[in-house]
Amino acid sequence: MNMHVPTRDRRDQARTVRENARRGELTVQTSGLAPGMVQGNLAILPKAYADDFVSFCHFNPKPCPLIGMSAPGDPALPTLGQDIDIRSDVPMYRVFESGECIDECPDISHLWRDDLVAFVLGCSFSFEEAMLEAGLSLHHIDRGVNVAMYRTNIETRAAGPFSGPLVVSMRSFKPADAIRAVQITSRFPQVHGAPIHFGDPAAIGITDIMQPDYGDTPEMRESEVPLFWACGVTPQAIVEVAKPPLCITHAPGCMLVTDLLNAELAAL
Amino acid sequence: MNMHVPTRDRRDQARTVRENARRGELTVQTSGLAPGMVQGNLAILPKAYADDFVSFCHFNPKPCPLIGMSAPGDPALPTLGQDIDIRSDVPMYRVFESGECIDECPDISHLWRDDLVAFVLGCSFSFEEAMLEAGLSLHHIDRGVNVAMYRTNIETRAAGPFSGPLVVSMRSFKPADAIRAVQITSRFPQVHGAPIHFGDPAAIGITDIMQPDYGDTPEMRESEVPLFWACGVTPQAIVEVAKPPLCITHAPGCMLVTDLLNAELAAL
Repeated sequence: MNMHVPTRDRRDQARTVRENARRGELTVQTSGLAPGMVQGNLAILPKAYADDFVSFCHFNPKPCPLIGMSAPGDPALPTLGQDIDIRSDVPMYRVFESGECIDECPDISHLWRDDLVAFVLGCSFSFEEAMLEAGLSLHHIDRGVNVAMYRTNIETRAAGPFSGPLVVSMRSFKPADAIRAVQITSRFPQVHGAPIHFGDPAAIGITDIMQPDYGDTPEMRESEVPLFWACGVTPQAIVEVAKPPLCITHAPGCMLVTDLLNAELAAL
Repeated sequence: MNMHVPTRDRRDQARTVRENARRGELTVQTSGLAPGMVQGNLAILPKAYADDFVSFCHFNPKPCPLIGMSAPGDPALPTLGQDIDIRSDVPMYRVFESGECIDECPDISHLWRDDLVAFVLGCSFSFEEAMLEAGLSLHHIDRGVNVAMYRTNIETRAAGPFSGPLVVSMRSFKPADAIRAVQITSRFPQVHGAPIHFGDPAAIGITDIMQPDYGDTPEMRESEVPLFWACGVTPQAIVEVAKPPLCITHAPGCMLVTDLLNAELAAL
């Protein structure tokens, strides 16, 4: 988080993370690595599904903020980093066939095909870093666990085979900090932006806030209010339901580290 | 609210409001007059109290956003409008002696003295206009009543004789609109800015939200959340407690209409 690190050095850190992943020396979560740099969610789909997936992202920009996309069969993503090879630069991948996870592996070169398209979506690490820098506490980070995530009763706008409920992540704050959290995350429309809801979980179809559908059980302290943000797990959940013959994603927390600065994604 | 009215015409409307007030032809509320123009709260105090009042405003910028101040004995406020004569340009004044309201009158020329200093503070009309333009509903405006206001258990930072609790105004929204309201009012730091609290009224010392200390009983609809903003009634309540020998304010809702655009106060 040290803002006095020159941009060149921070980009070098991002490149080092990718090189370590490429060599198979980094196979774990990227949280906290290359501070200040944008990390992205990955989804790789056959070209036959790509147009519908692009439409789905455009229809649902809050859960699916598309920040990069490859040409079919091309493993490069030059707008996110000159040297990126998407077949090897993520520490750990998950391989889905017809919606079922059949493998977890640190390299997918053996699976690459001329018709695959890689999509990179913004992730909440960017706005979480901005909240931490602004002095807010995030309980899941203090506790070293995953953020709590929930399926809601809010339907995404469908595109082709892609449809299903919005998934949200939850972070709780006292009201004054919640107001700050709205202000800070509003600056990051490309990484989920402002919360979509706060307060009563039942209003968006969450029956028990202590029973998340993904991630870990949250901590809720006295006089705190839950805030709910559109979550990058939404496209993953929806791709699993659409059951394309092949889909490759990052393993949870093992993101693509890019050469973009979080600060470059800030709207203001 | 018509944004296609040229700025010159809108300034002409502001000048017309002041001229009508000056001639005694406008003696009622200014709400809705001269759309797009900043309206201000007025407090006139003897010079002996002025330095402490300036400090109080600087210590408490959210309830007391100072947007203009006269030289002692000078009724002009050229930064707010070239022609302003603060002795006559507000539709209705209230005169307080030792904290007690002893008169309400449309002109205070007979009370003017060489040691009086006029203070103009930003008012919530500016951010309410921005919320209405953004498509939000404000119940008190729909109902044609005053916003509900409450004394809180939050102490202002004292300066000389000026001290006392923060007064807040309350507007309620469904959560998604509440998030928009935080975003919109954050753009107006010179007119109270973002809410200071939302949700549980007891957390800031409000025992019954249906019993405001100022203004009218609010309407609270199902699944709405109350948002609380620092309120321009705070300095008036505090001046009444400080009991200066003389204090002149605007009568409720009868504001000084200035030549500043609301849009000029927007931070972003």
